[in-house]
Amino acid sequence: MDINLNADLGESFGAWRMGDDAALLGIVGSANVACGFHAGDPLVMAETLRLAREAGVSIGAHPAFADLQGFGRRVVQLSKRELQAVVTYQVGALMGMAQAQGLRVTHVKPHGAMNNMACEDAAMAATIAAAVKAIDAQLILLAPALSQLASAARTAGLRVADEVFADRAYTDDGNLMPRSQPGAVLESSQACLEHVLRMVERGGIVCASGAFIPCSFHSICVHGDSAHAVATAAVVRDGLLAAGHRLRSLPELV
Amino acid sequence: MDINLNADLGESFGAWRMGDDAALLGIVGSANVACGFHAGDPLVMAETLRLAREAGVSIGAHPAFADLQGFGRRVVQLSKRELQAVVTYQVGALMGMAQAQGLRVTHVKPHGAMNNMACEDAAMAATIAAAVKAIDAQLILLAPALSQLASAARTAGLRVADEVFADRAYTDDGNLMPRSQPGAVLESSQACLEHVLRMVERGGIVCASGAFIPCSFHSICVHGDSAHAVATAAVVRDGLLAAGHRLRSLPELV
Amino acid sequence: MDINLNADLGESFGAWRMGDDAALLGIVGSANVACGFHAGDPLVMAETLRLAREAGVSIGAHPAFADLQGFGRRVVQLSKRELQAVVTYQVGALMGMAQAQGLRVTHVKPHGAMNNMACEDAAMAATIAAAVKAIDAQLILLAPALSQLASAARTAGLRVADEVFADRAYTDDGNLMPRSQPGAVLESSQACLEHVLRMVERGGIVCASGAFIPCSFHSICVHGDSAHAVATAAVVRDGLLAAGHRLRSLPELV
Amino acid sequence: MDINLNADLGESFGAWRMGDDAALLGIVGSANVACGFHAGDPLVMAETLRLAREAGVSIGAHPAFADLQGFGRRVVQLSKRELQAVVTYQVGALMGMAQAQGLRVTHVKPHGAMNNMACEDAAMAATIAAAVKAIDAQLILLAPALSQLASAARTAGLRVADEVFADRAYTDDGNLMPRSQPGAVLESSQACLEHVLRMVERGGIVCASGAFIPCSFHSICVHGDSAHAVATAAVVRDGLLAAGHRLRSLPELV
Repeated sequence: MDINLNADLGESFGAWRMGDDAALLGIVGSANVACGFHAGDPLVMAETLRLAREAGVSIGAHPAFADLQGFGRRVVQLSKRELQAVVTYQVGALMGMAQAQGLRVTHVKPHGAMNNMACEDAAMAATIAAAVKAIDAQLILLAPALSQLASAARTAGLRVADEVFADRAYTDDGNLMPRSQPGAVLESSQACLEHVLRMVERGGIVCASGAFIPCSFHSICVHGDSAHAVATAAVVRDGLLAAGHRLRSLPELV
Repeated sequence: MDINLNADLGESFGAWRMGDDAALLGIVGSANVACGFHAGDPLVMAETLRLAREAGVSIGAHPAFADLQGFGRRVVQLSKRELQAVVTYQVGALMGMAQAQGLRVTHVKPHGAMNNMACEDAAMAATIAAAVKAIDAQLILLAPALSQLASAARTAGLRVADEVFADRAYTDDGNLMPRSQPGAVLESSQACLEHVLRMVERGGIVCASGAFIPCSFHSICVHGDSAHAVATAAVVRDGLLAAGHRLRSLPELV
Repeated sequence: MDINLNADLGESFGAWRMGDDAALLGIVGSANVACGFHAGDPLVMAETLRLAREAGVSIGAHPAFADLQGFGRRVVQLSKRELQAVVTYQVGALMGMAQAQGLRVTHVKPHGAMNNMACEDAAMAATIAAAVKAIDAQLILLAPALSQLASAARTAGLRVADEVFADRAYTDDGNLMPRSQPGAVLESSQACLEHVLRMVERGGIVCASGAFIPCSFHSICVHGDSAHAVATAAVVRDGLLAAGHRLRSLPELV
Repeated sequence: MDINLNADLGESFGAWRMGDDAALLGIVGSANVACGFHAGDPLVMAETLRLAREAGVSIGAHPAFADLQGFGRRVVQLSKRELQAVVTYQVGALMGMAQAQGLRVTHVKPHGAMNNMACEDAAMAATIAAAVKAIDAQLILLAPALSQLASAARTAGLRVADEVFADRAYTDDGNLMPRSQPGAVLESSQACLEHVLRMVERGGIVCASGAFIPCSFHSICVHGDSAHAVATAAVVRDGLLAAGHRLRSLPELV
């Protein structure tokens, strides 16, 4: 099976470092690049794009609420027009920076609270999908499988990449188990790999209860915010390759 | 003679209003749109673009230092790489927002302290010109006539629109007289119009001393931050038309 | 009856002006001064304090969510610890600036969404009350009559000033009628004055339906964001004085 | 000899960590706490104050230019009134947060570019000294020995703590050697300790050339931005104690 690995990158800001972008870029096929609203200043963005180009990794915009202190994880209520404008602004900013390096932004994945809220709120999902389509109808929207966001993007006629998470347990309705519950985050690299392989091989989401929800997906989200996370990403990559799967960038897949 | 009028627009922010954009858009041929760093949030930008489209006015990016409280008028020292990144980011953001409305950004004019510093600092001017060229080599750089910025843009191979100011007196070396000096700002609409007509008819900058510096220019900068300023802009426009000149957008001229 | 008029002031930011602070300071007895998170930069705060001192008006801190673009009107979810910290930070900042001018901050009134949310959310109200008490147990909390915020402040042992609004209609449960409903905002100065006099004379909230909720209150909130608003504030002040009431600052009353 | 060790702390922001505050607080006698303009959000400030209280370390405000992305290291030109206001605001904010924990801010040390500029610019130094004095005349100003800032603070009648740097070489005029020059930063812990002991024992600044400038000083600045830096701070502390010196907090010394 052809599959994509994606990760959030470029989450440093000013003097503050976060994540090991160079290491992750050797593992994933697609990078979601912070656009300055929750992380990533223009200099960090330029450097992340440069590294992504060297690694041959496809580039996505990772827009968020304007919430630097909360890292875009705080719930913020925006009007439809504001939401559309902040998404467009951030995607445009990254597109411009990519263009200046001869690169193209090929996908969009909302970040943090914006993503979580849009996964459950159909109106918000539709607004984001419309914003992405208006700026470039060729953009792929990378969204959690079975989410309102994925659904809205399809309805809007966008190309959609559905994603599942390597290190998160699922409830029986296909949602991520809240982090507050025990077992919500898979701790060991081996557990993550097994979770991924089960989902890839069965063709759907394997829930924590053992329940199975058949669904297609194209991409697996891995993290890079700790040495452990990078090691897990590498284990998942190696395990997928060893099982005979092929790793692709998003534009090659969708 | 074919000539352009340009003005800074979209300088509101959040709940705060500044300038009478609707009135100015009925007067000028080209708008310099704030990009969120000194003024203009994504919602203001979207609305400014909408109004500019309705008015048939060409659109430029008006990037600035990240200095909302100082309105981009504070001297800030950035490294070359940072300057390049913040210009690219802002131009890209406006391009994206324009694209989402089916519009094109056709020029760039730095704002405030960034503009003033680049007019005198050849290295900084070259960095800005390079940033603009990298993002889109077809962009016009709108720069004060005789400035280092205009010169650097020409050296970089960019199209350049030279501008003069309707309401500012010039020193004998072709620089703007500092605002701290008496007579630096022409107060009456009639004085502004006469100043403009003299420069247009003689083909160069008429200094406060009466000295004359021959130079070509394409555009006249007018302001809209007060009712008086808008009235002056209208007087200048009407006077130019009455004298038989034709008003153009920047892409029609350069 | 002794009564207080309060208004939000110091809501300019950088180059942007809002409200006619000088005019309002001639009318009200107490000013709620923006602290930099939704409006009011350090320079604006210093100037507002200077004007308040000249006018002999008592000073309150007007803390808000960190949301400059949304003017503090956006719903933002903060943890208890974050909410406590942002309130303390803003009250402290204004206290320091007041101290530098030989003044004292004597009350606190949360702004916008923070205030609205705390009026209905008892836990949030308790957090704000605890933050205010920890920084200075002598501070008065200015809160809408009958709100969770007023109640939490009393439970915490703070002095509380209950307020009603001159220009807003009330529902039968004592809440402000949502602005989306017709009649939610009283348009004419005369209607505002009559509303205020009815509430002062009957000693409680007169609802839009005519229902009456007896409750004590100490302060009437007036606005200054337009020439009309300032005129209304003056009409309310003059009407109260003409009816024999005495206008006081909050520390004189509570 | 009684001497103080000081360090910059609380320089994390939101999701981003910087420095090992807990380790440094076990070494130094006084902490310069970031106030939110270059680093340190309200939550970080609250936590830093809590740790400082547990460690029995005296607390100073570390105000900076509003420059989060540049970490307060960018040259920014502010008017005298603005500079005064931003210093007062930040000192007040920390004072309020300290007060809420039953603590007192006892010193102020400007950060980064603000500090560097004020060390050479007498007018700027006088403005900062006046701002500090106005907010609390008992505050100690912690300033580099021989600087304009130390001089202005003495002229203003403030208590002054002069500092030298453990890990920086000095030019013959008593200034820090620019970081761009080889040898500007002492790399080994042992070299730092020897540098410190020489200065403490001779009672003045020992320059890189071997020249000696007699001057009193009260405090030695150490850093904590890397594991190496923390180790160096510990070596300096242990060496001073072994040589029979006593370590004090700033209020115990000045």
